[in-house]
Amino acid sequence: MAQLEPDENCLVEPLIEAISGKWKLLVIYWLAQETSRFNQLQRNLGNITHRTLTRQLNELQEAGIVSRKDFKTIPPHVEYSLTPLGQSLIPLLRAMHDWAAAHADKLVGKK
Amino acid sequence: MAQLEPDENCLVEPLIEAISGKWKLLVIYWLAQETSRFNQLQRNLGNITHRTLTRQLNELQEAGIVSRKDFKTIPPHVEYSLTPLGQSLIPLLRAMHDWAAAHADKLVGKK
Repeated sequence: MAQLEPDENCLVEPLIEAISGKWKLLVIYWLAQETSRFNQLQRNLGNITHRTLTRQLNELQEAGIVSRKDFKTIPPHVEYSLTPLGQSLIPLLRAMHDWAAAHADKLVGKK
Repeated sequence: MAQLEPDENCLVEPLIEAISGKWKLLVIYWLAQETSRFNQLQRNLGNITHRTLTRQLNELQEAGIVSRKDFKTIPPHVEYSLTPLGQSLIPLLRAMHDWAAAHADKLVGKK
């Protein structure tokens, strides 16, 4: 078993916190596909309210994972995309996905 | 950027949930070092109450990450250890740690 670092947790907890919460991973997933406007993202996500998506996007922006570009036009045109930090998460999410795919039966079955 | 799978989120969310919550990663960290009795774990963790550690251990057991062995002796002797599922998490936690170590300034700075 690989040795863990003593500082494991101080560092990893903010990461866990940043991607915790229903919809966050889905939002990251869709923004990894393409830069999106709010309505497009809401359509892709399906069953999410305007208010919830707004909150999730705000929290992802605060964490530095998502950026918001306002073109300051009338009618408004705003685009959301992954920041470089958000993009750097993709290989990690893939590793988490691979682990989860290999062990989903054990983990999900217990919940 | 690596392509994410469409089922990314259904699978990864239970994993995130299982390791979310203050102390969980620290408990996994210490149990990765050695099988421990409750009091030993509590000493290693430092500032955790009996009640909180009990709850965290119960949740980790329900998720299939930690196992509890009761030797059924008087006085009681109970040991906690990582299950094979829990041990399989270590390389993933290391990858999360490495990502967090590389990006901690950006992520933590925004919170």
